[in-house]
Amino acid sequence: MALDLEAIYVDLHRHPELSFQETRTAGVIAQRLGELGIEFEEGVGRTGIAAVIRNGTGPVVWLRADMDALPVPEQTGLDYASTARGTDPAGNEVPVMHACGHDMHVTAMLGALERLVATKDEWTGTIVTVFQPAEEYGAGAQAMIADGVLDRFPTPDVVLGQHVTPLPSGTVGVRPGTQMAASDGLTVTLFGRGGHGSRPHSTIDPIVMAAATIMRLQTVVSREIDPRDVAVVTVGSIHAGLKNNIIPAEAKLELSLRYPDETARERVLEKVERVVRAEAAASGAVKQPTIVTDHTLPPTINDVDATARITAAFRREFGEGAVVDPGMFTGSEDVSWFARESGAPLVYWFWGGVDPQKYADAAAAGTIERDIPTNHSPFFAPVLQPTLNRGVENLVVAAREFLADASA
Amino acid sequence: MALDLEAIYVDLHRHPELSFQETRTAGVIAQRLGELGIEFEEGVGRTGIAAVIRNGTGPVVWLRADMDALPVPEQTGLDYASTARGTDPAGNEVPVMHACGHDMHVTAMLGALERLVATKDEWTGTIVTVFQPAEEYGAGAQAMIADGVLDRFPTPDVVLGQHVTPLPSGTVGVRPGTQMAASDGLTVTLFGRGGHGSRPHSTIDPIVMAAATIMRLQTVVSREIDPRDVAVVTVGSIHAGLKNNIIPAEAKLELSLRYPDETARERVLEKVERVVRAEAAASGAVKQPTIVTDHTLPPTINDVDATARITAAFRREFGEGAVVDPGMFTGSEDVSWFARESGAPLVYWFWGGVDPQKYADAAAAGTIERDIPTNHSPFFAPVLQPTLNRGVENLVVAAREFLADASA
Amino acid sequence: MALDLEAIYVDLHRHPELSFQETRTAGVIAQRLGELGIEFEEGVGRTGIAAVIRNGTGPVVWLRADMDALPVPEQTGLDYASTARGTDPAGNEVPVMHACGHDMHVTAMLGALERLVATKDEWTGTIVTVFQPAEEYGAGAQAMIADGVLDRFPTPDVVLGQHVTPLPSGTVGVRPGTQMAASDGLTVTLFGRGGHGSRPHSTIDPIVMAAATIMRLQTVVSREIDPRDVAVVTVGSIHAGLKNNIIPAEAKLELSLRYPDETARERVLEKVERVVRAEAAASGAVKQPTIVTDHTLPPTINDVDATARITAAFRREFGEGAVVDPGMFTGSEDVSWFARESGAPLVYWFWGGVDPQKYADAAAAGTIERDIPTNHSPFFAPVLQPTLNRGVENLVVAAREFLADASA
Amino acid sequence: MALDLEAIYVDLHRHPELSFQETRTAGVIAQRLGELGIEFEEGVGRTGIAAVIRNGTGPVVWLRADMDALPVPEQTGLDYASTARGTDPAGNEVPVMHACGHDMHVTAMLGALERLVATKDEWTGTIVTVFQPAEEYGAGAQAMIADGVLDRFPTPDVVLGQHVTPLPSGTVGVRPGTQMAASDGLTVTLFGRGGHGSRPHSTIDPIVMAAATIMRLQTVVSREIDPRDVAVVTVGSIHAGLKNNIIPAEAKLELSLRYPDETARERVLEKVERVVRAEAAASGAVKQPTIVTDHTLPPTINDVDATARITAAFRREFGEGAVVDPGMFTGSEDVSWFARESGAPLVYWFWGGVDPQKYADAAAAGTIERDIPTNHSPFFAPVLQPTLNRGVENLVVAAREFLADASA
Repeated sequence: MALDLEAIYVDLHRHPELSFQETRTAGVIAQRLGELGIEFEEGVGRTGIAAVIRNGTGPVVWLRADMDALPVPEQTGLDYASTARGTDPAGNEVPVMHACGHDMHVTAMLGALERLVATKDEWTGTIVTVFQPAEEYGAGAQAMIADGVLDRFPTPDVVLGQHVTPLPSGTVGVRPGTQMAASDGLTVTLFGRGGHGSRPHSTIDPIVMAAATIMRLQTVVSREIDPRDVAVVTVGSIHAGLKNNIIPAEAKLELSLRYPDETARERVLEKVERVVRAEAAASGAVKQPTIVTDHTLPPTINDVDATARITAAFRREFGEGAVVDPGMFTGSEDVSWFARESGAPLVYWFWGGVDPQKYADAAAAGTIERDIPTNHSPFFAPVLQPTLNRGVENLVVAAREFLADASA
Repeated sequence: MALDLEAIYVDLHRHPELSFQETRTAGVIAQRLGELGIEFEEGVGRTGIAAVIRNGTGPVVWLRADMDALPVPEQTGLDYASTARGTDPAGNEVPVMHACGHDMHVTAMLGALERLVATKDEWTGTIVTVFQPAEEYGAGAQAMIADGVLDRFPTPDVVLGQHVTPLPSGTVGVRPGTQMAASDGLTVTLFGRGGHGSRPHSTIDPIVMAAATIMRLQTVVSREIDPRDVAVVTVGSIHAGLKNNIIPAEAKLELSLRYPDETARERVLEKVERVVRAEAAASGAVKQPTIVTDHTLPPTINDVDATARITAAFRREFGEGAVVDPGMFTGSEDVSWFARESGAPLVYWFWGGVDPQKYADAAAAGTIERDIPTNHSPFFAPVLQPTLNRGVENLVVAAREFLADASA
Repeated sequence: MALDLEAIYVDLHRHPELSFQETRTAGVIAQRLGELGIEFEEGVGRTGIAAVIRNGTGPVVWLRADMDALPVPEQTGLDYASTARGTDPAGNEVPVMHACGHDMHVTAMLGALERLVATKDEWTGTIVTVFQPAEEYGAGAQAMIADGVLDRFPTPDVVLGQHVTPLPSGTVGVRPGTQMAASDGLTVTLFGRGGHGSRPHSTIDPIVMAAATIMRLQTVVSREIDPRDVAVVTVGSIHAGLKNNIIPAEAKLELSLRYPDETARERVLEKVERVVRAEAAASGAVKQPTIVTDHTLPPTINDVDATARITAAFRREFGEGAVVDPGMFTGSEDVSWFARESGAPLVYWFWGGVDPQKYADAAAAGTIERDIPTNHSPFFAPVLQPTLNRGVENLVVAAREFLADASA
Repeated sequence: MALDLEAIYVDLHRHPELSFQETRTAGVIAQRLGELGIEFEEGVGRTGIAAVIRNGTGPVVWLRADMDALPVPEQTGLDYASTARGTDPAGNEVPVMHACGHDMHVTAMLGALERLVATKDEWTGTIVTVFQPAEEYGAGAQAMIADGVLDRFPTPDVVLGQHVTPLPSGTVGVRPGTQMAASDGLTVTLFGRGGHGSRPHSTIDPIVMAAATIMRLQTVVSREIDPRDVAVVTVGSIHAGLKNNIIPAEAKLELSLRYPDETARERVLEKVERVVRAEAAASGAVKQPTIVTDHTLPPTINDVDATARITAAFRREFGEGAVVDPGMFTGSEDVSWFARESGAPLVYWFWGGVDPQKYADAAAAGTIERDIPTNHSPFFAPVLQPTLNRGVENLVVAAREFLADASA
């Protein structure tokens, strides 16, 4: 009685859950693991699950899938589009959507585990699978580690993970070295002085302060970073004020910063702080702004040798043309904590979720950025197949590359 | 058995209610009117109350007090500071505070009615009192009129109202002609294209669009309006985005505009719209921004002759030095609808609520704007006395100026 | 042999001269004064002229006309448009134009002196006339005073002056109290670090620093000054860089600030300095910007009693409707130094130079600001008549109001 | 009698000349070529020189050196610092400096030619040398080609050139493929409406329009270009206004844009134009801004095979460690026109001019961008040696790599 993966995916897509709230998702996973006869623990790192398949002597391969969804109002128009709502950490009710494809990650992982269980006579070794919560807050991997996942389960010889992206379905992208950027999430609070909307001179307007700060932050990337280097300074949210005729007392900005390494990180952080403080001074702010780091993600660095093995395996299995070097992504991940903390090599790859014809047309027209919705977009929607099947195969091929061959 | 006005004020201050939600407040008023034996109707214009004292032949004097509070988190540190919360029109839970002194307006009005009832043998005529809801949304006066208040109650010969402000307690400010500005409240929605915070190039960033718009809106006042004219363009709220690593699809701004008259209104609105549209174009927005007018308030224009009478009466009663010309206020009011719709003259005055010594010290130090909290500030707190007593006396003196003298 | 005033005006208009370079202009004046038999001294305050008509006992009336032109490229299309060029204080060759009407001031003054000389039997007293240089740099009045003009000529009992403006020709505008604003001219130099245009990260870009400063300076007026107060912060020039592919080391801004009085002056200056310093800090500037005051002009305050006399005289002579209260002008003048230093009352008025029909049409269409070129515009061009004749009459009527009547 | 290269360099450094004005420089070159007995033509492409050494059968190698200097005020403090002044294309007198090292290029080329002449028995073939004018305006190579240099001289089999840069002296940097960026130089003129500095509302302020445009242009790079792509949008000069109290009618910006290829070029140009037009619209400009392309430079693309040969030769000659891949430079060059028009392969390399110890110290401190002056900086000053000798050797080694070996 095989898993109906497409049904699982559609169900998960319809029921997305925010970070550290993935209880229904964990329940689905637990049920399926049970059906597959796989040993697992729930509640690892709050809402995470760790599972283990022990199959004789051999390497310990860790496979990781992340589970959480995002506060995005789905606009895909799909039959199975989400209408779910959740409560964000600030207590606000927000729309929720699997706008980053973690539903696909979970489903492909369940399919891969099913396949690996079914072929246990072909390989030996140990497979540890972590269904990780709260990747979107950059907090779930560390939560599982803090909860002892590296101690309570066999230590990894290699850590493997994957992400669905706007490449053509049927394609896999992987590169040695830096695969994804380092990142910090900051909350900046600017303090003005509130008052009546008709009397700006009796206030220190934090909304104008915020606008000037945002415009000035653009110059960090446009003027202060070597044009050949990668850096992103995004203000992803701004909230200030409750009513048109009241000038509020403060404004809150949430920033997402990206860079390839620690040196760049320090430079960008220093410049961002300099701009924030100076713009508060330009407004005559009496109280200094606060800058709080909500999360810090290291760069996702693929081990050179392990990546070479997997790249070769993918090429062998899927054909030369199906495996591309996607370049460094400016997105960030917390998967590398499992590798960093255990000292194991990491390989993290991308696989395509876009209808190949649609992708080719957009490429020909030079409109990929406009026409192909990217992760976190309200329009992000991987085509079901061959995306889902390939997600399963990627994991099986990669895991088998490191597990021992039972026939050897 | 006299009303304990201070207790009423403190009670109202502790229990502020947002616009059109003033049910508890209306209940307090109704109870006191009943105690005073005054005839009244509840639910006029949703949560408003209209009361009438008929006392023989003579002019019909309308007295108006507004009742609603604001979504402001009180920071006065007073014993009786509000900790109330309410639900704003968008459905968000917000802190609520009497940051505009309408609790003082209601209490002073009750005190004045008590006094006028007690002295019915000294005057003849009719007093209609409107306890108006939703002044802060510029909607309550029109709601009462739409509900027939001008038809169901005796037609005014004069409309009188007052507002507590950051003048020294003991002072009253009034001028003929334009006393308060005209105003519009606009909601501007800017449309970008959402996406991943690490991939700005695949999005149209509505937060940068909003920041550029806000900075450019400053030039309407700084460059495009005659420096000798009065105009205010305030962005009182901005909301966009839910998470640092998601670039949202849109940003919402709430604007409060102020001007002395209709000509200026048209000019400022045209310029604001021009800036909003051009900044969307600068971002390459595909979808045009929307600009919705939430409310429109006419200027508050004091009748020249009626104002002269009241000014003289105040001077006679309180002394020459206690009556000042406060200049035009850039704040706005909907009180004038009662006068406009009925054709009656209007007199609307301000009275002081600041400790006179504190005011004098700040004036001497040139720090009034910094040290004296203004209406809508989370620190706004009139000193209880003589503010409250003077609020009562102002109304009694002004009403008696227009009522007939029973001894005559 | 009467002066051909129109020919004199056209000649002066064709030959404008920059501040403290008015040697040809002074030569024309000197020649005409000689023809009129008026005693005068040249070279007073470098290029100024002071003349005196002694005519028996009576008050000493000072009349003042300013002589200098501006670095503006004339675009009026007039037959007698200027094609002159001059050298500005920085040594650059610039176009020169009488874009402020000082040619009209000089010509009208010569016409008035001719008339007053011709009617010496009708009045007694003394007329001192100062043809002042360098009004546009706010330096000429002080230069004449430093050169002893107040000591070397009879002390004024009243100081009179006039300016041609975009009011309808035939109109005169005057008011008691503050007639023109106080002003400061500042030069702000921003220091960055130069380098190759393709390597912004190795520089501190002073042009971006300047742009951010200019945008932020807008908020001084839009947010920090009471909307009911008058203030102007103009950046009138910006110069930085020599070539597209070199990021320069510095940027130079010239600011013109306006306010009604000393209190406002201090506030605006403090805010401007705060913004300039903070924006340099936001850029990470190593070297502090410099802010140099090029000139300071006091407000031009008309004496209440003297203005009442002149207003009455103008009304009598030209009709009620021809005399208006023009409000406070935000332009500034150095004429008041003659009154301040001598303790004499000042009356300074405006007279119209715009075709009345054209003005009425623009007023009806609400396009005055767009269609009627203002002083300092390259399109500024008073209609010759009745402007010139009225300029003469204004001076004669005003002077005669204060001189003694010989028939008395 | 060998050339005294250091003296030649110092002389050229002291006497820099702007683009197409390199007559003294050409005279120095002509004199030295004459002394070396090399055949040459002057006035090729206005002020250029082409020289040819015919030495039997064999490949034709083109060597190119550029000659012009920049409008930069030298601040190196060197004994031989330039105090020269010149006249720029707009007719302004400007300071002139060899801030880009073309004096070093010319001198090294003369040294290389001397060496190649002296060793004519070791090689056969033809060397054509172009001393090119006006590289800084991106116009000189095309001017020489338009003047027939490719027809009048032997057709190249390879084109070689070099540039001194802020690498450690003793180092050479070269890479196959795109070595330098494509570039456009634009002049943007923004049209407002001029007027009096005290009456901004009667004007359309082009300086505020320019500031808003500059701030918005930052978002092209910060938000609209893939963070992994290379793009630069520099505003290298801004000029507007002549006096603090006159709001001018227009503002002129000079932009330098950089990108790796034609696709990126079109994108950036489209975005820049969009921003410029929208910001003019935001100001209510009546007249559309003009955008004029002053020059267009293609990317400098090194031929893969030819670059491999030269890289190997450099490594052999100078040691492995002395040859680095410098990455793509965002600077641009017109040298590639000689290769594009003739179809010959191009190799263009960089060589270091910074004191190695100083460079190492700055690298260790992470202060290279701050402490090592880059090309076009007023502080740019290559250390004389070994820079000059290595410049000579680079050219000799590279030329000999392609010339035939006489001993073969």
